Amino acid sequence: MKTGKTVITDPFWLRYRSLVRHEMIPYQWKVLNDEIDVRIERERNDPSIPNEKSHALENFRIAAGIHEGHHYGWVFQDSDVYKWLEAVAWSLMEEPDEDLKKLADSVVDLIALAQEPDGYLGTYFTIEEPDRKYKSLMNSHELYCAGHFMEAAAAYYEATGSRKVLETAKKLAAHIERELGPEGTFGYDGHEEVEIGLMKLYHLTGEERYLRLGSYFLRIRGTDADFFGDQQKTDSGSEPLIGGMGVFSRRYFQAHRPPVQQDTAEGHAVRMVYLCTAMADAAASEGDKEMLEACRRIWRNIVDRRMYITGGIGSTVHGEAFTFDYDLPNDTMYCETCASVGLVFFASQMLRSESIGEYGDVMERALYNTVLAGTALDGKHFFYVNPLEVNPSASMWDPGKSHVKPVRPQWLGCACCPPNLARLLASVDRYIYTVKDDRCLVNLYISSETEVPVSGGTARITQETDYPKSGTVRIRVGAPENGAFDLGLRIPGWSRTYGVTLDGAAADESSFENGYFYIRKLAGEHEIVLNLGMKPRLYKADPRVRADLGKAAMTRGPLVYCLEEADNGKDLHLLSIDPAGEVQEEEEKGELGDIIRITAAGKRIREPEETERLYRSADESAVQEETVRLRFIPYYTWANRGSNEMCVWVRTI
Amino acid sequence: MKTGKTVITDPFWLRYRSLVRHEMIPYQWKVLNDEIDVRIERERNDPSIPNEKSHALENFRIAAGIHEGHHYGWVFQDSDVYKWLEAVAWSLMEEPDEDLKKLADSVVDLIALAQEPDGYLGTYFTIEEPDRKYKSLMNSHELYCAGHFMEAAAAYYEATGSRKVLETAKKLAAHIERELGPEGTFGYDGHEEVEIGLMKLYHLTGEERYLRLGSYFLRIRGTDADFFGDQQKTDSGSEPLIGGMGVFSRRYFQAHRPPVQQDTAEGHAVRMVYLCTAMADAAASEGDKEMLEACRRIWRNIVDRRMYITGGIGSTVHGEAFTFDYDLPNDTMYCETCASVGLVFFASQMLRSESIGEYGDVMERALYNTVLAGTALDGKHFFYVNPLEVNPSASMWDPGKSHVKPVRPQWLGCACCPPNLARLLASVDRYIYTVKDDRCLVNLYISSETEVPVSGGTARITQETDYPKSGTVRIRVGAPENGAFDLGLRIPGWSRTYGVTLDGAAADESSFENGYFYIRKLAGEHEIVLNLGMKPRLYKADPRVRADLGKAAMTRGPLVYCLEEADNGKDLHLLSIDPAGEVQEEEEKGELGDIIRITAAGKRIREPEETERLYRSADESAVQEETVRLRFIPYYTWANRGSNEMCVWVRTI
Repeated sequence: MKTGKTVITDPFWLRYRSLVRHEMIPYQWKVLNDEIDVRIERERNDPSIPNEKSHALENFRIAAGIHEGHHYGWVFQDSDVYKWLEAVAWSLMEEPDEDLKKLADSVVDLIALAQEPDGYLGTYFTIEEPDRKYKSLMNSHELYCAGHFMEAAAAYYEATGSRKVLETAKKLAAHIERELGPEGTFGYDGHEEVEIGLMKLYHLTGEERYLRLGSYFLRIRGTDADFFGDQQKTDSGSEPLIGGMGVFSRRYFQAHRPPVQQDTAEGHAVRMVYLCTAMADAAASEGDKEMLEACRRIWRNIVDRRMYITGGIGSTVHGEAFTFDYDLPNDTMYCETCASVGLVFFASQMLRSESIGEYGDVMERALYNTVLAGTALDGKHFFYVNPLEVNPSASMWDPGKSHVKPVRPQWLGCACCPPNLARLLASVDRYIYTVKDDRCLVNLYISSETEVPVSGGTARITQETDYPKSGTVRIRVGAPENGAFDLGLRIPGWSRTYGVTLDGAAADESSFENGYFYIRKLAGEHEIVLNLGMKPRLYKADPRVRADLGKAAMTRGPLVYCLEEADNGKDLHLLSIDPAGEVQEEEEKGELGDIIRITAAGKRIREPEETERLYRSADESAVQEETVRLRFIPYYTWANRGSNEMCVWVRTI
Repeated sequence: MKTGKTVITDPFWLRYRSLVRHEMIPYQWKVLNDEIDVRIERERNDPSIPNEKSHALENFRIAAGIHEGHHYGWVFQDSDVYKWLEAVAWSLMEEPDEDLKKLADSVVDLIALAQEPDGYLGTYFTIEEPDRKYKSLMNSHELYCAGHFMEAAAAYYEATGSRKVLETAKKLAAHIERELGPEGTFGYDGHEEVEIGLMKLYHLTGEERYLRLGSYFLRIRGTDADFFGDQQKTDSGSEPLIGGMGVFSRRYFQAHRPPVQQDTAEGHAVRMVYLCTAMADAAASEGDKEMLEACRRIWRNIVDRRMYITGGIGSTVHGEAFTFDYDLPNDTMYCETCASVGLVFFASQMLRSESIGEYGDVMERALYNTVLAGTALDGKHFFYVNPLEVNPSASMWDPGKSHVKPVRPQWLGCACCPPNLARLLASVDRYIYTVKDDRCLVNLYISSETEVPVSGGTARITQETDYPKSGTVRIRVGAPENGAFDLGLRIPGWSRTYGVTLDGAAADESSFENGYFYIRKLAGEHEIVLNLGMKPRLYKADPRVRADLGKAAMTRGPLVYCLEEADNGKDLHLLSIDPAGEVQEEEEKGELGDIIRITAAGKRIREPEETERLYRSADESAVQEETVRLRFIPYYTWANRGSNEMCVWVRTI
């Protein structure tokens, strides 16, 4: 059962979707086509990011035999094109456009031309090392790229009905099945993704072979003694496909044990959540309880011990990876945009198996904070790394923080994040509802219109809200008169007070279950009004999180707030907040968009005189403080006013 | 004018000096000679530390033509032998030993044999790339090694009168002067040290040419447009001498501007303080005010903004370097043992120009904390990196902290620190006094006997003290009856109360000046008693030090204290100290030696129930605390009871 088309009418999200359509897609097209002289922001002292241009489309032209030349860029450069194509697909579903469709069709044609007659698709190996196909799966990203193409193809077929894109994807899937499926050579990709792509093909076509193949890759992973190492030993290629990757352990690839036996979130964070997304999809699609249990364990580990309050994941730049429980440093972390995109995917898939509000809470947390912070308000600058604390001097002078940028670069040497962000923003309508067995969960509050299939016909659901500015959501339902479906309203974990009315009368409070408030057995026309308390609230972290001890984070509704130097002056660490002080909300329409600014009572330690010593006897060194108002802005709007300090966690008085 | 021989009689220091003589020197000899199967503790994921054995002496045998083979190890491997030889020299001065002298003489013979007829000395280039001599000075460490040999030679000549060692050093100096001196090719070493060695030759021989050459290198440094880069371009060698060094800027080498124009401590910390040591020596030896001013500026920058409370320097592992003002993270820093050794050198040289107690304070701080922490109490395990906060889980699972070892390795792939430590401990008697123009400064309080030259003859000074356990120092002076010299007692910056008696009567308090309390115009026999208040004291850092805000460090006298898991349980960050609480001192003779343990009133946050969420509303998340006694040990004794957590800075209640 699939939800029908959802039309977003929400100003907050229409702005982002318009950015995707009118800024990101055209801009990223030019980047992929080398039409823009992008000043790539290189990681300081990091020779592992060599790219000065994209060349991604040119690689396809060369592989297709249209142009002569060599492959340029990462071995996974193709995936940038696929993610762009997927974003286009979602955007075309929202708003058809013949010119954009023609452009995208030409890309599909190019991809099909670059595909080899046997179905193989991968420009690096076609152009440079045809004999090395599938022979260095630890780093080759061949199945990773294939998975992204399958995802793009499924979306593009849905958007346009293009047979060509679907046939190309099916031919590729068949090639992979033949070469690496249960009857082929043993092997799986170092970067999970093909499993997701295969599931998408399965959901689109209903053909079980794709589900089986995806599930097969999930099941063989980590069952080997040392598959990657063995392949490396016999690898005929002279050069490592990605420099510096030899040092990572099997844990980095989530290959230290079979996924179904894993308990904790390990290694490269994007890989981990892509794996989880596929596992949760397989668990829901196959009804596999053991797989679901593994998903639950890893979910608990992430959400209880390894996730930032912004929904960011990945505590270290080294391997862009998880580290250990409660290790959540705010100024050296990674929190890759792609990882939070993946966390949204994972949460969404879990909702297919379990109607638990926490999945929606985390989805919302990641989406409204880290994912949105991944793009500048102009839609043309992007973060790969999303810090919770930034000092531009540290980014400049401490090489251990050089990956933490105080401003969003125009593009990134490893350009996975911008198109990943684009495809999620363009498809955010797909995450609003989860529909299953006459139950429709409302996960996200976004003004929109949709139709969902229920017993007896179709239910029409309309949301009207000014969320997240306002906590009032007006939902009109038109259900079949002879039908009866349950509507579950997510009551966010952050919401201390809420009220639900059904046709003007208070709804039955006993209907709350696992984070959802249910209006049961709906039939006919109804109006439901949800009121969520949106008072600003301070949060504290578990005291085992060393970095946050003695600190608090300001939030309002789903939004995490932060302090910026632009509003609060330099040396943000000298500020502290009075948890008992007065908090004010101010609506503001300005350079940060239409936001609620929060001010709170606080103090600032005065900088000592220059004559003071660096270390002073404690009883002689009472700090001088002055009373100040702290000015908070939503985290997703930070770094839109030039390079400056920022912090989410503020010392408490 | 030179101080005479000082004989240390102090139990605290005799133990260390005995360790040097009976543990470090024999142990390090075996390591250098590959007689011990040392399990090298490699840096995790750090392929830049390739050494699995020392091979340092074998390199000399091969260069000398005694054995066949290839050079192995770092390009600066020779310096390990020189620093060992220097430690032997100091130790022989303390206590002659024919067997040890014979062994050392054989090393001198070997070095002389490895020297080329023209005076060149450097086993890597002699063996592997004779055509590349002095052609890649950015990384070759040729002058660095030469400087260490000159230091060793000066000490060994003083200890034994060996003409051979002196002639070898002079021949080497002459070669360098000919090739790279004012009349030779322009060039200076990427790692400062030869300047120190040349000064040592100058002080020993009185020959001005060594002072001039050392001073020349100081003056030409950084005057070029891009000397290192230009050399790299024409370098005939195929391989970089040290991998990964290409990414460092001129600042790393203190070559971004001439030293005399530098204001801040930049780049590799050991290089910086070695440079400063030579600059301060040149300033004192040549009476160069401009050079002295530069030393003062850099000193102020280090001491006011870039030095840890332990006397550690170098805030980042990346380039083992300084970063920026007030950036003093406790758990990712470097604080290399060698850097604090160099800081002792720098301070000692400054005292030759200026009788300012702060130089002695910092010397003492570095010596009693970071330098001593560089060795295990057994004298056979060594730290390269001296953290102020360690969590073994972080060292294991966060690659950004993998350089922070929770226990001292047996040896180090880059083995600069153990012999550097040995030579300083073996020569600590040289740092007790500064004698100049009838003024004798007592910088360190160490039971000892010495004779110093003063007008009219020789003054005998005897110190008796149980410092740093006790703050009472009894000093007996026997000065010429017709002489009159001033004795300056350093009153440490940490000492809040002190008293001085001269022959039983309170001394004139007006005699305090710039950190020294002077007993003036001493003649004949006198007894002076200094009493320094040794009450434990909490220190706070300047609030601009983000890492230490809201925290305090326990100290007692010159010793910084720390908490260890062995005494306080896991999760040390959950502990806080009550600055107003009762503090107790307990004498203890046990596995940590003869120490004063400190206990203080504090609290421990209870770990929350497993069911609690990672992030909780601040008004619902009051932490549960219990009252505890915090148990502190001297920092220099940490990590002698297995792998465990440690921290210096403790949250205050």
